[in-house]
Amino acid sequence: MKVKSMLTTLCYIEKGDSYLMLHRIKKESDVNKDKWIGVGGHFEEDESPEDCLLREVKEETGLTLTSYKFRGIVTFIFKPLTGEPDTEYMCLYTADGYEGTLCACNEGILEWVQKKEVLNLNLWEGDKIFFKLLEEEHPFFSLKLMYRGDTLREAVLDGKRIQ
Amino acid sequence: MKVKSMLTTLCYIEKGDSYLMLHRIKKESDVNKDKWIGVGGHFEEDESPEDCLLREVKEETGLTLTSYKFRGIVTFIFKPLTGEPDTEYMCLYTADGYEGTLCACNEGILEWVQKKEVLNLNLWEGDKIFFKLLEEEHPFFSLKLMYRGDTLREAVLDGKRIQ
Repeated sequence: MKVKSMLTTLCYIEKGDSYLMLHRIKKESDVNKDKWIGVGGHFEEDESPEDCLLREVKEETGLTLTSYKFRGIVTFIFKPLTGEPDTEYMCLYTADGYEGTLCACNEGILEWVQKKEVLNLNLWEGDKIFFKLLEEEHPFFSLKLMYRGDTLREAVLDGKRIQ
Repeated sequence: MKVKSMLTTLCYIEKGDSYLMLHRIKKESDVNKDKWIGVGGHFEEDESPEDCLLREVKEETGLTLTSYKFRGIVTFIFKPLTGEPDTEYMCLYTADGYEGTLCACNEGILEWVQKKEVLNLNLWEGDKIFFKLLEEEHPFFSLKLMYRGDTLREAVLDGKRIQ
């Protein structure tokens, strides 16, 4: 079995005052089940962050990005209540240019959600932190999020604890 | 055996018009043998990029960083002439503040080298590209370097091929 890379990309595509959000309701065993997140996924062999970004966005949305920005790296440390701990390094992008037509995604339902409504969705607790950083146009950041089960226990921004 | 993370940090510490360079001459089986590079190393368990940066700089130089900046991510794809290919994702930092006293490093010889002299050292070919980006104060970048043996075959900056 191929081991999944511990590196992933996540992208929030912007159109006007909305983000393209993915409601993860299609896979039973999905760690993100019922959560709303962006589009993206795990790095494949020989991929740079941009290679992974462009492939995943194309696969999940049908869109080809023409303008995007690398916004930060999020280090996730998941300690589940049962089972093995997991670490993920997520390259976070926003994109404001694309070509093509939005198609159905086999990981969930794609929906344009007004930015001011995003925080009312069922989000991971730590995602609210990086949405705020994106909105504030924070310079490139490194955010470390430590979860125990679904609960965010600690958040460290650019080396300084914030939660 | 513990598997080495495919994520690393590398840091160029600045003092006046010099960088702290490490001449890798102490380990026989070192992929960097005889090359000059910065200080850094592989991520350990549960480490964010900053956690790894601070630990590695402390271990290799004795210094504690007090001011540093995340400058870019370098994706290395090494295809050796013989043996297994290797991929590494390197978080590149510069630092302009530190405390403590420089100590000997067991990976090589530490030396302050004037920035204008750095390109005359025995460097990896691709490192010259990112030194230029550092000097130009390029915004956070993603650089993909593809090596076949010691030869740089392709370089892609922020998704655009440059070599």
